[in-house]
Amino acid sequence: MALIVQKYGGTSVANTERIKTVAERAVSTAMKGNQVIIVVSAMAGETDKLIKLAHEITDMPDEREMDLLLSSGERITSALTAIAIQKLGYKSMSFTGRQVGIITDSSHTKAMIEHIEAGRLKTALDEGKIPVIAGFQGINEFSDVTTLGRGGSDTTAVAIAAALKADLCEIYTDVEGVYTTDPRIVKEARKLNKISYDEMLEMASLGAKVLHGRSVEFAKKYNVPLVVRSSFNEAPGTLVTKEDGDMEKIVVSGVAADKNQARITIMGVPDKPGIAGGIFNEIAGANIVVDMIVQNVSSDTKATDMSFTVSKSDSKKAFKIAKNVSDRLGAKGVNMNTEVAKVSIVGVGMVSHFGVAAKMFETLAKEGINIMMISTSEIKISCVIDVSHAGKAIKVLHDVFELAKH
Amino acid sequence: MALIVQKYGGTSVANTERIKTVAERAVSTAMKGNQVIIVVSAMAGETDKLIKLAHEITDMPDEREMDLLLSSGERITSALTAIAIQKLGYKSMSFTGRQVGIITDSSHTKAMIEHIEAGRLKTALDEGKIPVIAGFQGINEFSDVTTLGRGGSDTTAVAIAAALKADLCEIYTDVEGVYTTDPRIVKEARKLNKISYDEMLEMASLGAKVLHGRSVEFAKKYNVPLVVRSSFNEAPGTLVTKEDGDMEKIVVSGVAADKNQARITIMGVPDKPGIAGGIFNEIAGANIVVDMIVQNVSSDTKATDMSFTVSKSDSKKAFKIAKNVSDRLGAKGVNMNTEVAKVSIVGVGMVSHFGVAAKMFETLAKEGINIMMISTSEIKISCVIDVSHAGKAIKVLHDVFELAKH
Repeated sequence: MALIVQKYGGTSVANTERIKTVAERAVSTAMKGNQVIIVVSAMAGETDKLIKLAHEITDMPDEREMDLLLSSGERITSALTAIAIQKLGYKSMSFTGRQVGIITDSSHTKAMIEHIEAGRLKTALDEGKIPVIAGFQGINEFSDVTTLGRGGSDTTAVAIAAALKADLCEIYTDVEGVYTTDPRIVKEARKLNKISYDEMLEMASLGAKVLHGRSVEFAKKYNVPLVVRSSFNEAPGTLVTKEDGDMEKIVVSGVAADKNQARITIMGVPDKPGIAGGIFNEIAGANIVVDMIVQNVSSDTKATDMSFTVSKSDSKKAFKIAKNVSDRLGAKGVNMNTEVAKVSIVGVGMVSHFGVAAKMFETLAKEGINIMMISTSEIKISCVIDVSHAGKAIKVLHDVFELAKH
Repeated sequence: MALIVQKYGGTSVANTERIKTVAERAVSTAMKGNQVIIVVSAMAGETDKLIKLAHEITDMPDEREMDLLLSSGERITSALTAIAIQKLGYKSMSFTGRQVGIITDSSHTKAMIEHIEAGRLKTALDEGKIPVIAGFQGINEFSDVTTLGRGGSDTTAVAIAAALKADLCEIYTDVEGVYTTDPRIVKEARKLNKISYDEMLEMASLGAKVLHGRSVEFAKKYNVPLVVRSSFNEAPGTLVTKEDGDMEKIVVSGVAADKNQARITIMGVPDKPGIAGGIFNEIAGANIVVDMIVQNVSSDTKATDMSFTVSKSDSKKAFKIAKNVSDRLGAKGVNMNTEVAKVSIVGVGMVSHFGVAAKMFETLAKEGINIMMISTSEIKISCVIDVSHAGKAIKVLHDVFELAKH
């Protein structure tokens, strides 16, 4: 008897017909002799609807209130899914983040899970129930509702799988798995059967929306085998797992574009030690994750330009902080560009192959695509370009690295 | 400095524009030197939308799951209202039923409040915040979400007012107060400046939807002064308070019709002692409130017909129980009529005046309206009639008891 955690995303629970399908899959998995735990997202469109309501009132709603507001969507789905499973004659029970005992820190809208008290969940499993957990949420020490940020339901699923030492965590979505690149942009995109945690991590951080980075980190840390697959059919999906020998033969496994980025530049920053630390400390203090950072050498040796990228949703707040810092340091000013995309290639084999970066830069140059920022890791190279070139960049890189071939 | 609890119903928070208006009224009340607590309902239509989703899955959804589902609506409004108050520069904070500490029994979908641990609420008031409470909900001993049934947000408001010994509890709705009858049906209907708890209790139980019976009981028990008024203007509303000398001069203060009733008749029940107790024990065990009960004398002395009314929402469940009981007792069968209305007249003066009942029956008879069931209390007379006659009955009774006159 295996313990399987199944997470269903927003499109998989978009209406009651689809929720019934989810219930059928859950029950059919249980009927094969498995223990099953379901984690659900908000019905597609619900979270955006709630955000829109808050923004009708103010541009910058309080984050504690946003968490209470947004946690409602998953609660609704969990109750409806439990009802649908019961309708099939199987025992089921909904769980809120609090009822599972998902205890987080107090970073509202992007809380980190501190621990999980899964006692009541285990009891429900022992009683032969299929627990249905409202994803994306927990509570902090004050018993206030917190949410785990974008992709939070993936994180919930993996954290539950880790806490209960589940045999498998299945992430159900509206695509059949992880592709070499976005199949809506490049029709030659190929579904991967297997990918390493690290590659998936880079892909996720690049806006391959199929799986959120934090959930992959969690899965890697606790060695939880993940499967990404479609809730609309029976295709086997992509297994995300530890690296193995096979994988290293492939230099580049995927190409991705992230359009949810904004570039902020602080111009004419006095060129003294400790300045960069000061700026990014302040931004981190506001719970904003900075992605790429580039400091340009300036012709003026006493001052330098500092550029960084943040997600579009954090950009207003980050810009405000950058402006304050700039004023205080006597920098020349701050500008922001939200019309950018980050295009990246990823592959565990990259570390032992030369010339991958050069090939990427040349390919983009040949297409007349200007590179604004570059950052590299052992298994990834990212370039920030104008958002209007993102689609073309993906296509040519997918082609030049021969990703359509097996 | 007074402590004022303000409760806003669904139409008062139907969209973000109205929520902003609610925030303005709350802040303006606070600016006059009062401490203010807000209790909110779900945005108009939200609860019905959620019920519809559950019923797309099954006719009889589990009640624990329904509570989790339905409690979401009020949570959404409380977060949005807190955000709107903050936007006006005033401190505010949302509270779920759990965060207030509203502890109820486990009768899901119609839980009773057992006690309120208002510690955190008091702290928020001391910190100069306007707390915004999600109405309608609490938690039981297992930390499961419960809801308080129809009109539950009124109950939340009055219970909070009682627990914190508030000076006033204002119930904001889309009408200007309590009327002698429904002004949409009888244009001569007159707004009452004052009404006793007992009269309001009868009016509420009769479907004068302006205030729920349980909240009035609570208010009477703890002597909480209630004001029913409109959130759309500054009209003073109706004060619901203890009886005083003035009130007793008026024989009939109001006429009401309740169309949310179903009549169930068990035919040919063996006429033995203890049968009635058995039937209604079983119905009570399913947490169904029975309103009127009439046992008809039968020409057949060994059997009798037993009729009772329940709310339409309970009717399917009650019918099923009645059917089982009927089969077990060897009764002749069960029928149900959901096309009925209960028409009632209410007044504290009624107890000391003769002939009120006779006048009511005569008036209905003159209009050719058949009376199916009758029940009376010291301050109320109710008749069950065909729903198609409800409007006419209200009009002629309002007229014959001269309710339009001061």
